Amino acid sequence: MLDRIRIVMVETTHPGNIGAAARAMNTMGLSDLRLIKPLQFPHVEATARASGSADILARAQVCADLDEALAGATLVVGTSARQRRIPWPCLSPRQFGEVAAGRVEHEQIAVLFGREDRGLTNEELQRCNYHVAIPANPDYGVLNVAAAVQLISYELRLALVGDPDAGDAPRRSRSQLLEIPPMEWDAPPADSAEVEHFLRHLEQLIIESGFLDPDNPAQVMTRLRRLFLRARPDKMEISTLRGVLTSFGKHLAAPSDDAGRP
Amino acid sequence: MLDRIRIVMVETTHPGNIGAAARAMNTMGLSDLRLIKPLQFPHVEATARASGSADILARAQVCADLDEALAGATLVVGTSARQRRIPWPCLSPRQFGEVAAGRVEHEQIAVLFGREDRGLTNEELQRCNYHVAIPANPDYGVLNVAAAVQLISYELRLALVGDPDAGDAPRRSRSQLLEIPPMEWDAPPADSAEVEHFLRHLEQLIIESGFLDPDNPAQVMTRLRRLFLRARPDKMEISTLRGVLTSFGKHLAAPSDDAGRP
Repeated sequence: MLDRIRIVMVETTHPGNIGAAARAMNTMGLSDLRLIKPLQFPHVEATARASGSADILARAQVCADLDEALAGATLVVGTSARQRRIPWPCLSPRQFGEVAAGRVEHEQIAVLFGREDRGLTNEELQRCNYHVAIPANPDYGVLNVAAAVQLISYELRLALVGDPDAGDAPRRSRSQLLEIPPMEWDAPPADSAEVEHFLRHLEQLIIESGFLDPDNPAQVMTRLRRLFLRARPDKMEISTLRGVLTSFGKHLAAPSDDAGRP
Repeated sequence: MLDRIRIVMVETTHPGNIGAAARAMNTMGLSDLRLIKPLQFPHVEATARASGSADILARAQVCADLDEALAGATLVVGTSARQRRIPWPCLSPRQFGEVAAGRVEHEQIAVLFGREDRGLTNEELQRCNYHVAIPANPDYGVLNVAAAVQLISYELRLALVGDPDAGDAPRRSRSQLLEIPPMEWDAPPADSAEVEHFLRHLEQLIIESGFLDPDNPAQVMTRLRRLFLRARPDKMEISTLRGVLTSFGKHLAAPSDDAGRP
């Protein structure tokens, strides 16, 4: 099951970190590595640091953008230092492990790791259902990106496989997350691209309606993104929402009295 | 308390690993690093990989042998792949964290990390009170030594400090971990009436738009209700959603081309 979880490294600068991340994944049994616009890859330094994990590097998928890396993903998690500006549903690494263990059979799970110097962008973080913050020294919380991959992979292994040596069975989240539909749901979860298309459709109509000034969007779309990503709509719900928006859009496209046109 | 626990690296070959270990320690709040006969130290590669943790390197004590590195230590733990040849008291990283949390005030704790190529010798392992085995892929369990330092430091931090962001006090039982969302939110949850007013507003506009036939509503509103109730919107989100609907409504109320009116 661990091989079903994909690790996505975004615009990694140092090829050594890519190799070290591949090794870290391998030590914990993960194998699906995707690289969005790595600065240098393949590279001798990546291969050296991967040690016995060259096959993970060889199979790593290099992607042009987030959409490609997230193709088919239904549960997207971004690693991030804790942000207070606009709180987002957040899990500890351990909690994420339990959630992943409970969902891995039914979902395509992707974990995003950002750039060495500045992590994930706000836009990237706002594509995520959850953020995962690794607990760290408040005076120096800057984990190396491969070290972060190691920690997350470790928690995923503990949750999905357990530590048989410690008499520790895999542990699934006991209390279902309220936002995550139970397993006997009637429609499969929408994937990341379907939700993204809906959100862009919504944004477009909000701009057309005049509610949102595209040059001064404030936090309207951020708040709406957070809401819908938290709710994790299923395919049927997204289809319904798209139908509603299309219906609204026919009216918005037409001249209205309020627009002051003849 | 974390600064009371010493990390001992034994005959490390690659100076980069020493720097990466210093950084890993720093991210988790550890600072006491001791190096037994490092092949190259100090070294520019160690400094580079230490990133913002040069002070830990500067204070690192270079030792001639295990006796010097363990001076004063009362609880010695060696990291090791699981060995069955001579059974030894063994802890998982998590169990070690709990043990350390219970003992750190009364003990001098040292954790040994072995050579890159062959770990700790039998003699070194037999100096330890406990062995700690990091659970790993049985087909490839060879963690980078700095990655192992990162994992152990992480478990020590979780056990001694906890993860306040996750509502996780030190050594608190796992069953209390999954309070979702375990975080400070920026707006209070909307109450039932506020959500209900929003949903009726939404339904009204959907009917006006022509998407929903009130006499044959199918499951459109049922699905939308389920989605929004699952998401548990906060007051700010409901306010934003109401604003969007009001903006849409102005257009819906106006005559549109689609309605076939002039």
